[in-house]
Amino acid sequence: MQDTNYSLQQLLDFTVQIFKAMGCPDADAQTAAIVLLQADLRGVDSHGVARLSGYVRLWEAKRVNATPDIKVIHETPSTAVVDGDSGLGLVVAPFAMQLAIEKARNVGTGWVSVQNSNHYGIAAAHAMKALEHDMVGISMTNASPLVAPTFSTAKMLGTNPICVAAPAGEQPAFVADLATTTAANGKLEILQRKNEEAPLGWVQDSEGHPATDANILKKGGALLPLGGDREHGSHKGYALGAVVDIFSALLSGANYAPWVPPFPAYVPMPAKQPGKGIGHFFGAMRVDAFRTVEAYKHDMDDWIEGFRKAATVKGQDKVLIPGDPEREAEVERRASGIPLLPAVADDLKALGEKMGVPF
Amino acid sequence: MQDTNYSLQQLLDFTVQIFKAMGCPDADAQTAAIVLLQADLRGVDSHGVARLSGYVRLWEAKRVNATPDIKVIHETPSTAVVDGDSGLGLVVAPFAMQLAIEKARNVGTGWVSVQNSNHYGIAAAHAMKALEHDMVGISMTNASPLVAPTFSTAKMLGTNPICVAAPAGEQPAFVADLATTTAANGKLEILQRKNEEAPLGWVQDSEGHPATDANILKKGGALLPLGGDREHGSHKGYALGAVVDIFSALLSGANYAPWVPPFPAYVPMPAKQPGKGIGHFFGAMRVDAFRTVEAYKHDMDDWIEGFRKAATVKGQDKVLIPGDPEREAEVERRASGIPLLPAVADDLKALGEKMGVPF
Repeated sequence: MQDTNYSLQQLLDFTVQIFKAMGCPDADAQTAAIVLLQADLRGVDSHGVARLSGYVRLWEAKRVNATPDIKVIHETPSTAVVDGDSGLGLVVAPFAMQLAIEKARNVGTGWVSVQNSNHYGIAAAHAMKALEHDMVGISMTNASPLVAPTFSTAKMLGTNPICVAAPAGEQPAFVADLATTTAANGKLEILQRKNEEAPLGWVQDSEGHPATDANILKKGGALLPLGGDREHGSHKGYALGAVVDIFSALLSGANYAPWVPPFPAYVPMPAKQPGKGIGHFFGAMRVDAFRTVEAYKHDMDDWIEGFRKAATVKGQDKVLIPGDPEREAEVERRASGIPLLPAVADDLKALGEKMGVPF
Repeated sequence: MQDTNYSLQQLLDFTVQIFKAMGCPDADAQTAAIVLLQADLRGVDSHGVARLSGYVRLWEAKRVNATPDIKVIHETPSTAVVDGDSGLGLVVAPFAMQLAIEKARNVGTGWVSVQNSNHYGIAAAHAMKALEHDMVGISMTNASPLVAPTFSTAKMLGTNPICVAAPAGEQPAFVADLATTTAANGKLEILQRKNEEAPLGWVQDSEGHPATDANILKKGGALLPLGGDREHGSHKGYALGAVVDIFSALLSGANYAPWVPPFPAYVPMPAKQPGKGIGHFFGAMRVDAFRTVEAYKHDMDDWIEGFRKAATVKGQDKVLIPGDPEREAEVERRASGIPLLPAVADDLKALGEKMGVPF
């Protein structure tokens, strides 16, 4: 079966209607849909509408509050902690990122840690909001425990992504958005669907041996931190994932480590809940809190051009700048539509029937 | 030949005298020696007194100013840019980190980008200063270009380390200090001395092919970003190294990318110098700018204990917390002294004779 392309507008309208059918206020439904669709636009198919029915199942399981009272519960001139009141991360995160931007406007930088939230789509959707204000944006979140730290067989951390978005001048912005694992879980799901093996270094089996079975997580296996094994620096990927957990949950009072609430609604909540919901962390730094925007952008363009002109290995025609592939996907998908796997389209159709929204 | 152990005090005294012989004021010589020796204490032998004669050679080449006028050239309540006036990074960095801490005291967080500096020792020596104030500390720096970005044969980035230090309660602090490459250059130097090969994934040859020759950097080869190759996430290591460069140099006006001044004084300065000196970036976040120190420390202890108790793979007796190996090295070396390779001791002896300071 072939993928079918759908227009951005069509998927946006449908997603807004689904969130409204869950009881989300109009503005929240719009916000959430735009954030979710950023993933499909940028080619991160695992994190977009393919997950819409997953969000609905969390709401059905009463783990998502469609009408949250999102509150600042602690703050200083450059920081805040936000309580997301169990709302969709797709709604809570934009609130928190906006707050970071406002604090940066006032005192140079803003840093917001979030408790009591849910999954927030792709990290880049939030960090990139800073770009419009000539600010550097930072976004990270903890997530369902799937990753074993170096030397362990236990799934103690999520894939805990970090995004840093830095504006440029004539050049498009630098946008690094990366899971702190060798491969994101979405990449593994693609292999599962294709019935293919994973490269060594992505996963381990239940005893911690190197494995290539893409379904190993269902058999007690785990994703590996960036680096893969100790000899190749997995302790660094583990440390980075841990930093994301500390900033997102230890600074906010969210759940951490293996006690982060799982995204799949059928997975029971951990018996221990040391905090509230899942945690995120956002930052915004005004470029002109450091030097003039003009001088910075001049150098940033020069930096990007230097990498674009760097000598390549045989068989590669260019060195990529972080964010290039996603930006190219967005250009193409705005023009030609967003391709959905038949299974995803069927799932959305079924979801629409259940929620009374035609797909 | 066996290593000989030297007491911390002996090496400190010698290092202070060497810096004073360069013309550093007393207080600066003390500061620089303490920072440099942190590396030896923490078991990072490549970054400690073994590099002392390298710093002296930079001073002889007039690339280091022994009496810098370190200045804040731009600031907001939560940010600053510091001009290090070509001083030792070992002196400039503590000034900048202290400023970040003061800003955090005032407005919750402080962020300082530095231009016109030199190498600053280990990243952890600076980030850990925040711990004394119940703050999270962050430290990063760009460095001599040794690393090829994914798909490139060109050395465009340094090993650009990141350190994040987060306080705990009863438990020792969490201290992640990592080069954004599969292996730090110091690890490669150890293999060179032992005449051993590097594991695949650490370096590539001049054409970008996987290589195991530990001397390959002298033959046009390069260190690889954390991940090793594209399939194992090297684009993530590259992106992280790039973020360090942007924060350290693009925000401050230091040299960036392949134009960072090399540490070895015999390597000529790059013809192009888009900025001044090398760049660093420091952050301090007051824990109580987010939540009470008590609640945070309670959770942080629980987090650390959770990882310590995690199931291990066969043959490993425990899961390490970032910072554990370095802290254990420090306990041992404070008690038994710091082992120096005969070649390093000889080098220090020769340096002492040249500078009129008995070793």
